[in-house]
This record gives sequence, structure tokens and C-alpha cells, in this order.
Amino acid sequence: MKKLIHLALIILISVSFSCQKETEKTQTSEVVTKVKNDIERIEPPHWWTGFKNTQVQLLVKHPNIMEATPSINYAGVSIEKVHKADSPNYLFLDLNISESTKAGLFNIHFKFNEEKELVQTYEIKNRLKDASDYQGFDSKDAIYLITPDRFANGDTSNDINESLKEKTIDRKNDYARHGGDLRGIIQHLDYIEEMGFTQIWSCPLLTNDMERSSYHGYAMTDFYQVDPRYGNLEEYQELATKAKEKGIGLIMDQVANHCGSAHWWMQDLPFKDWVNQQESFENNKPLNNSNHRRTSNQDSYASKRDKKEMAEGWFVPTMPDLNQRNPFMANYIIQNSIWWVETLNLSGIRQDTYPYPDKTFMSNWAGAIMNEYPNFSIVGEEWSTNPLLIAYWQEGHDNKDGYDSNLRSTMDFAMQKNMVDALNEDEKWDTGLVKIYEGLANDFAYASPKDIMVFPDNHDMSRIFTQLKGDVPNTKMALSYLLTLPRIPQIYYGTEILMHDFEKPGDHGLIRTDFPGGWQGDIVNAFSGEGLTDAQKDMQLFLKKVLNYRKSSDAIHNGQTIHFAPFMGTYFLFRVIEGETFVHIINKNEEPITIDLNRYEEVGLNGKTLINIITGETFKWQDKIILSERGSLLLTTKI
Amino acid sequence: MKKLIHLALIILISVSFSCQKETEKTQTSEVVTKVKNDIERIEPPHWWTGFKNTQVQLLVKHPNIMEATPSINYAGVSIEKVHKADSPNYLFLDLNISESTKAGLFNIHFKFNEEKELVQTYEIKNRLKDASDYQGFDSKDAIYLITPDRFANGDTSNDINESLKEKTIDRKNDYARHGGDLRGIIQHLDYIEEMGFTQIWSCPLLTNDMERSSYHGYAMTDFYQVDPRYGNLEEYQELATKAKEKGIGLIMDQVANHCGSAHWWMQDLPFKDWVNQQESFENNKPLNNSNHRRTSNQDSYASKRDKKEMAEGWFVPTMPDLNQRNPFMANYIIQNSIWWVETLNLSGIRQDTYPYPDKTFMSNWAGAIMNEYPNFSIVGEEWSTNPLLIAYWQEGHDNKDGYDSNLRSTMDFAMQKNMVDALNEDEKWDTGLVKIYEGLANDFAYASPKDIMVFPDNHDMSRIFTQLKGDVPNTKMALSYLLTLPRIPQIYYGTEILMHDFEKPGDHGLIRTDFPGGWQGDIVNAFSGEGLTDAQKDMQLFLKKVLNYRKSSDAIHNGQTIHFAPFMGTYFLFRVIEGETFVHIINKNEEPITIDLNRYEEVGLNGKTLINIITGETFKWQDKIILSERGSLLLTTKI
Repeated sequence: MKKLIHLALIILISVSFSCQKETEKTQTSEVVTKVKNDIERIEPPHWWTGFKNTQVQLLVKHPNIMEATPSINYAGVSIEKVHKADSPNYLFLDLNISESTKAGLFNIHFKFNEEKELVQTYEIKNRLKDASDYQGFDSKDAIYLITPDRFANGDTSNDINESLKEKTIDRKNDYARHGGDLRGIIQHLDYIEEMGFTQIWSCPLLTNDMERSSYHGYAMTDFYQVDPRYGNLEEYQELATKAKEKGIGLIMDQVANHCGSAHWWMQDLPFKDWVNQQESFENNKPLNNSNHRRTSNQDSYASKRDKKEMAEGWFVPTMPDLNQRNPFMANYIIQNSIWWVETLNLSGIRQDTYPYPDKTFMSNWAGAIMNEYPNFSIVGEEWSTNPLLIAYWQEGHDNKDGYDSNLRSTMDFAMQKNMVDALNEDEKWDTGLVKIYEGLANDFAYASPKDIMVFPDNHDMSRIFTQLKGDVPNTKMALSYLLTLPRIPQIYYGTEILMHDFEKPGDHGLIRTDFPGGWQGDIVNAFSGEGLTDAQKDMQLFLKKVLNYRKSSDAIHNGQTIHFAPFMGTYFLFRVIEGETFVHIINKNEEPITIDLNRYEEVGLNGKTLINIITGETFKWQDKIILSERGSLLLTTKI
Repeated sequence: MKKLIHLALIILISVSFSCQKETEKTQTSEVVTKVKNDIERIEPPHWWTGFKNTQVQLLVKHPNIMEATPSINYAGVSIEKVHKADSPNYLFLDLNISESTKAGLFNIHFKFNEEKELVQTYEIKNRLKDASDYQGFDSKDAIYLITPDRFANGDTSNDINESLKEKTIDRKNDYARHGGDLRGIIQHLDYIEEMGFTQIWSCPLLTNDMERSSYHGYAMTDFYQVDPRYGNLEEYQELATKAKEKGIGLIMDQVANHCGSAHWWMQDLPFKDWVNQQESFENNKPLNNSNHRRTSNQDSYASKRDKKEMAEGWFVPTMPDLNQRNPFMANYIIQNSIWWVETLNLSGIRQDTYPYPDKTFMSNWAGAIMNEYPNFSIVGEEWSTNPLLIAYWQEGHDNKDGYDSNLRSTMDFAMQKNMVDALNEDEKWDTGLVKIYEGLANDFAYASPKDIMVFPDNHDMSRIFTQLKGDVPNTKMALSYLLTLPRIPQIYYGTEILMHDFEKPGDHGLIRTDFPGGWQGDIVNAFSGEGLTDAQKDMQLFLKKVLNYRKSSDAIHNGQTIHFAPFMGTYFLFRVIEGETFVHIINKNEEPITIDLNRYEEVGLNGKTLINIITGETFKWQDKIILSERGSLLLTTKI
């Protein structure tokens, strides 16, 4: 009894002591009664309490701020270190935000001298949900890729913004802005949901204040601002919220490699090495583009020169190449990514031009995000059909050089090409369907095939309908095959209505054609179906059926894969899980053909009844199947 | 002192005891005074004492031998187990040959009953050198590949053998025998040595007693007999010995996957599963060829059916597919390989059709050989341009399925194709020289690139001069590049004199054209140079110079590799080791071009004098180089 009392006393004392400490701190904190905005720019614009990493580094930009001494008086927040930059107009402040920090506003004082002091109010917010609740995309998902300027113009009032350089809107010019925006996507979430997509990846929506071709979004001039021609931050958040309500996740397209040449900091760079080849840039000398020799990232024989030209060359002359080996730049990019994940409740990030930035940094970048959001997903773009490179970049692959990317998802440009070849080529020993049979076999070398993203096309390549020479059955076969693989499939907007670029194959502006119905007055409306050709409607319905079956198919999400070598112009792929077997058959024969099903005996379907996902017809699996027409046949035992 | 005496006594007693035991054994051993040969066939024909593995399994074939009880009375040799087969005409004896066994003859008694006993004398030999003295081939070597029927006819007396099925000789028929033989190779060892080769790989020299096309050698009908049309075992040993005297190693071409349909055992197969699809074979039913879907070896999605068709299908209908999962067959093949290594003092084995036999067996096979000869080399043929497969088969690669091949050397069909494409294609962003630049970059994924064999062509593909469309400078570039890589290069006989197959590209018989001068009365003699065109002489001399430089170039054997992305139609590769830098330049420009050498500054050649390996001219490395003609330039600092 005496012992218990003693223990209770200790607890009491401890509690009172910690209360006292808390009170002390709060007492000494400055109370912010009025928001002060003396400073030209401070980034990130706000931060949160509750991250594993309690450090945040603020970029402060203001004339001669270098001369000021900053101070903060807020419980839990301390300035750990102040870094001067090469330019007098920057300071970098390392803040520590201790675990106990409460959300709120506080002032940062910048004291220049006895007479001059500037004050900037800064905010620490509470995180809205638990880190582990940020659920990334995976093989259960199907991603709809949108070029936002070209999908739907939901708000014509933001089409032209007089404060930005490119002021024209011209739907007849493929490289001009067309007016699509966030409101347009929000308005058509029903369509996206009904089609069966569970994730939206939009090309970048941040400000691209470039003179021309700003519509593509990859030349960012402000990493913290939504491009006003797409809307504003609230609308971006509204998209995220409304999508999430429909079970649709949001993937943000981010660019760590470069910015647009009109980025605000290009006028006054904080450090002498903020961007690569900065000296040439500042002295108006010729700049070198990247040599684009991406293999130099892995090549153990690559010359230093090739590696340097790859990493430090500019992607294109209008996109300054960020130097991620500058630790302030590194922090800036990592924090920017986290800021957006937290602000938009993202399910994932698509990182542009993955092999171009410093690769050590990219591993740190992905590692920092995954550290805060363990269930998050990041997919990196490496445009290579070489499976060795696809394997190299995925986390968990045992690379000889010890490199670990921390990247859950890579992109399957190899399978994309194999699929197109498989369908375009005639069936021979080593051409045609064998390309996907042997291509898929390469999965043995991947750390996690089902975390790799696959796609029939994207915003940078000819439309799949064009690649397949306008052949509808081939297009259906391609789409249904890719949607059935142990992969995360991505479909580019408009593929469902056979959008193409036959006139100028591969032309970027043309690939990114307006989605019909996205603009008031459009004669054709692909959302309602009005004005679509029969072939377009048929394809839209086909994809809708496949996607909606896929949505709840455990066999496709997680099933074992079994496939058989191409045989008489056909190719059978099975996805098998307890309680469900899904069958995908590609048939390239123009004439009816009978296939002996004993060949597939090991799958154990004999005597079972399957349903055709597209027609709803049933089929009893025994002895043989007659494939009456060229195309894909999708059958399931899940009735 | 007392202790010492005690110890000495113990030793004495032990010695005398073991002497006594030895004497006892010898006393009970049967003395062989006359060699007995009652048994139809016993294989291996003899064995050795001193292997790590003290077991050997004898195949005994004789009418109704199943009914006999075997016995041996020889010190150190014991019958551990006797296995009956499915056929009554076979017995398999597991012998143990203890470490202390002395070489000698002994009899194996086969007692059928009180009246009948057959006796077969068997020999255990001493090994002639230490296991570690069997030195394999490696990147210091250059291999000359010979099709023995087509290289040189050194002994016309063996051209036709009346005891064999194919009795004709007809040099005008590409698929008939032409008379080349072991004596022909022995007679021209000087030529091979002077050219600069350090290894000879001859296509198989064992008996192919087939009705037709027996010249290629891959349809063996006796795994222990030299084809009499090539000579005999003593001549094969003479070739090995005389080659070794010149510092040239001998690589034997072996086939574990199949035999010829006229193999002696096909008349009376020991087990019901000695060959795959044996039931069909025995019942005269249709046999299935292999599906040749080699990726099913790695593919984690491959159906059981595809794997079975791959492994159990016959390579071609005239070559029964051996079932290596039968443990007696497995032992037979492993022992046969070791028998030849030991008999011919081999430096290596080239294993045919590597992905076709059971892959677990292949790992055990290679493991068993490497266990006995730790410095030996085996190269396996997998005809694939997919680097993932090349990597998979090489020992030391971390395969996800845990497979370890024990195979030191794989074949670089990928580089062969890349090189041909690099030279045949026009120079563009993604065609031409970039094919070898990016192809070589794939080395990052190989466990040991320098142990991989590379070749411009071989006996199964169009001659390199044909693949390169009869372009001499391109052929020189291809040869010198391949000979300079971190690889083991192999050159097919006749490549040095521009042998080609323009008339029927890819036709096997034509590819394997007679080497001029190998037959008495040949008007052209490539050994002496008589009758060769200037272009042929020039190529022969070119290759000779490269090979002879390569022979002593540490930079090429072991140097670091540095290469630079293709630039203005040129491609620079450096091999660097302390004291020696070797430079290989490919120039595809028809017109003279000046290259700024500052681009290659990091290699550290500035101011150094280099020698042109072909012309002997010197070149001072500074500022720039003028490449005056299309072709390769080979420079070295080793003067």
C-alpha cells in the first residue's frame, strides 16, 4: 500500500512538472495577433507538426536578407542553423519542429539592426491524417492519364491570365493553350469513375509562365503555385477530395530535374551552383543539352564526361537543369514533394525524367517521402525498352553497384513496345505474339513486376490506335492484355474513343488532342456519347467493361500468372487465385480456328463454366474452343 | 623421455599394423596376368585414382547381364552397389575407388551361375597431373573455332570408313563429308600459333555414325570414340600434346542434350526413361520436337507444358533427347565429360545447346567438373540476344530463383548482333554505333563480363563478312573491336581470309566452307598465302597483328574499360592498366574528320606517344586527331 502511494506521488509530480514546463514555454511564446507579411518570399509557405523528420529548411528571399538575424519565439520551434547563400537576397533557415509542437501561427523576426526589423508570420499546421493512411496506388488500380489543358474546359473565366506571359488561347493550334482546367476534371469525375478508373494522373498543374508551349506543364516556374489557367490550390484540393469520395486517388506529376527558364529564381539564383552550367547561363554563353545517354547511370565503363553530360546537360534549352547536389536544392525539392503530398492528400507521385537528376539524390528523395508515407507510391519515368534498366531502378533489385532507388514503381516501356510489335508483326517463329510471350518472361528479373506501370501509350508517344495502324481488334487486344497483366495499368485519356495522330504521327501537340465534349459547343461529346462513331462507342464500352471487371478481380490484382507459348496465331494467359480464374486469349486469325483445350489442362478449368466479360455469354471449358474472329476473348470463372 | 619412447612405440605399432593391413589386402587381390574381354561393352572404358569424388558408376552392357552377380578383388576398389536396369542387358555398378588405390588392372567377375562366369579386365590409371594444373581459358586467350571436316585433310586414308553408314566423300556437296581430320589440324598448328590464337575449339570429333550430314558432329553415336574419319584417340591426344607445347589449349565441344538417332544404345535402351519421349520412340509414334522456347527456363509464369516441351522435346527428329533426370544418365554424362578432360588434358569444354537439357542437371554437371578441376573453364551455348538470359546462366549472378549454374562462361550473342547492327546501320541518335555503346553498357548486370565469350560469327550463323555485306573496313572494325573488349574472343576459321556465304546466306553447309590449302591440290592456299587476293592477305595480316598484340596485352586481358558515347560517327574505347593504355577507335566517316582529343582528357594520354598496332607508326596524343579513312585505329602506349 505504501508502495502504491509512493508511485502515485511520483506520477503526480511528473505530470505537474511537465505541465509546468509546457506553461513556461507557452508563456514565453509570442502571441500572433496580426499576420505580418514583410518578406518577399518564404518557402515552403507553411509546414506541419508531426513528421518523422522534425527538420524543415526555409528558403527566405528578400532584398539583402543576408544582413538580417532571424529569431523565432514559439514553443517547440527553434532555429537550428542559419545559412547565408551566395546571393545577398537569400537566407536558409533550418527549423526544428519538436514532436510536441502545437499547430499555430508564429512570427519570424529578421533583425537588420537596431532600427530595422522585418516580420513574417509562418504557420505550422496539424496533419489531417495518419502517415500510414496515405495509401499509394498498386496493381488493384487503373490510372487515367490526363493532359489538363486538353481534357475539359470547366471554367472559361481562367482561360487567359493577363499576369502570365502566354496570353493566347487557340484550339486550332496544337501547341497553344486550349483552356482545359481543374474544374473540367472535377466536372467529369463521374465519367472517370464510371469508366472504371481508380486513379487520376494529370500532367503537371503548376505554373508554367513560359512564353510559348506552356500547355504541357513540364517547365515549371513556381513549384508552389497552381497555374491560374488551371484554377487555384483550393480547386486542386477540391479535385483531390471529390475524387477520393469516389474512391479515386490522385497522382501528382512532379519534376525534380529541371524548371522552366522563366522560373522566378532564374533572375537571382541563391547559389553559384543552384542549377547546372550556371556560369554559362549567367554569362550568356552556349549551354549544353544533356547527351541523353541514360545508360551512363548504370554503365561501369562510362566515361566521367558522359556521366557529367548526362546529369548536368539541360533537358532542353528552355529548362534549366537543377543541381540536386547542392544540399539546399536537395532539401527544397524533397520538401516541395512532401508539401504537395500533404496538401493534396495524394496517393502517388509520378516523377518525370527519372534518370536525369543526380541518382544518389533521387534515391534520397524517394527515401525521404517513403519514410514519411510508408504506404505511398512513386513511379519514375525511364524511357527505356531495356529490361536491365527497368529492373535497376526498382527498389529491391540487387544491383551490383549497391544502388537502391527506394522507388516502388518503374515504367514498362519494354512491354509497350513488345505489345505493339506482337500485334503489328506477322506470326512467325520469332515475330508476332512471341514478343509478348518472351517479353513477359523477363518478369523473372524484376524485384516486383506487379508494381511496374504499363501503358499502351502516353502523352509523349504516338496514340496506340496510330501505333497499331488504325486496327480496332488489335487495339482491343492490346488494351485488354495490358489491363490483365501483373502490372499497374495506365490509360491515356481519349484512348477509349480511339483518339489518334495519323496526320502527323508522334507529333506532341497532336497526340494531346482535345477530348471531345470537354468544351462547350463541341459537336461530339465523348462524355455523353453524342456524335461518337459506332467504333468509338464500341471501344469505350469495351474498355469500360474490362476496367470495371478488373476493379474487383482479385485474380488480376494478385493472382498467379500462367501463360503458354503462342500457338497457331493464338496466345493464352491465365490469372489464377483461389475462387477465380481469369482467361485472356489473343487470337490473330482472320478465319475461325478451333483450339484443343487439353493443351491448357494444367490450369484446371475442365468442366467449368466461364463468363465472357464483354458479351456476358457463358462458355463451358472442355475439349476445345472455337475462336470465330480476330480479337481478344476475356473469360472468368467469377460469376 | 619415457613419454617420447612411448609415442615412438605407438607410431611403430600403427605403421606395422597398417602395413599388415595393406599386405593382407594385396595378398587377397587377384593378379591379372591376361586381359580378359568377355563383356560386350563397359563404360567408362577405364578410370583414374585420385579424384575428389571416389565414386564411379560403370555401365555394363551384355546379353542378360542382369542375371549375373559381379565381384572385384582389388585393393581399394569395392562394388558399393549393383543396379539392375529395365533392359536385362545392362548392369550399373557403383565402384568406390579409395584414395589409397594404386593404378593397375583388375578383373570384374560376372557370375551367372555355378557354370557360367564372364570376366572383364578393367583399368584404374594414375592421373598425370595435379587437378589445379588444368588451366582453363580466360580473357587472356583467343579461340580459333574449327569445323574439323572442313579445315584440312591431313590423312586421306581415313576419308572413307567402310564400317560407318555415310561412306561418301564429296567436296562439291556442302552437306557431305569433305575429309578434314585431326591430322589436318595437327599439321597446321604452326599456322594457328603464328596467327596468334591460344586456344582451339573444334566442333565435335566423336563418332557420328549417321546416314547423312554426319560432318557437323553434333549427332554422336558413341560418346567414347573418336570418329575414325577424323583419326583415332591417339591422334586426338597428339593434337592436345602438340598444341600444349605451343601454348595452345584444347577446348572440347560436348553435347549433354542429345545423341544421334544411330547411337548404339538406341537399339536397346537401358531404362524406360533413358531418353525423353521414349515410349513414342519405341512404339514408332510421332515424336515432338522441342518447342525451343528457351525463356521457359527462367520465366516464372511459364506453363508446365511449355517447360516440358522445351526440356523433353527433341532438338531435331534425328537427335534423341537424353533424359538427364534419370540418375544413371546423369552419371554417364558427367563421367564422360571428366573422362575426356583427363584423357585429352583439356583446357575447356564448350557445351552445346545449354538451355535444352534439364537445368538442375546442367548445374550439377558443371559443378562436378569444376569440383575436380577448379581452374577449368566451361562455356555454355545459349543463343539469345537477351542480356537477362546471358546474365542468368553465368555463375555468380544473383538469380531470384536461386539458380546457380556453376558455369564460368556464357556466350555473347547480344554483342554479336549489336556489333553487326552498329556497323550496318546509319549513324543516328538511336542507330549505328550507339548499339555497341549501349550494348557494352549492359555489362553492369553481368557477374563477370570478362569471362563471357564473344565472337563475330560461328559455325551456325552467316559469316561475319556476309553479315557486314562484304564491307572490308566494317569487318576489320568488328574484329578489332571484339578482340579488344573485356571478353574471351572466338574467331571462326576462315574469317581471317574473308570467307563468306553470299550465295546462300546462312546456309549451314556453305558457312562451313573448306579452308583453302587444307586439301592437296587446292589452288589457293591460305596457310602459305598462295593464291589469296590482296584483300584476303590484308585481312589475314590485320587479324594476325591484332591477335599477336592482344596476346601479351595486360590492358586487354585485365584492364579497366572506359568508353565514350559515339560522337560524329566515331567511337572511342580505352583499356587501361598500369603501364599500358590501349585505344580502339571506330571511324565510320568516309571523308577525313578531325576529332578534338580534349574530349578524352580524363584518360590521361595527353602528351604521350602511342604506336599504331597495324602500321607501326607513332602518334603523339595532344589536341586533336585526324581520322583520314573509315576503319578502326588501334593505338597503344606499350612501346
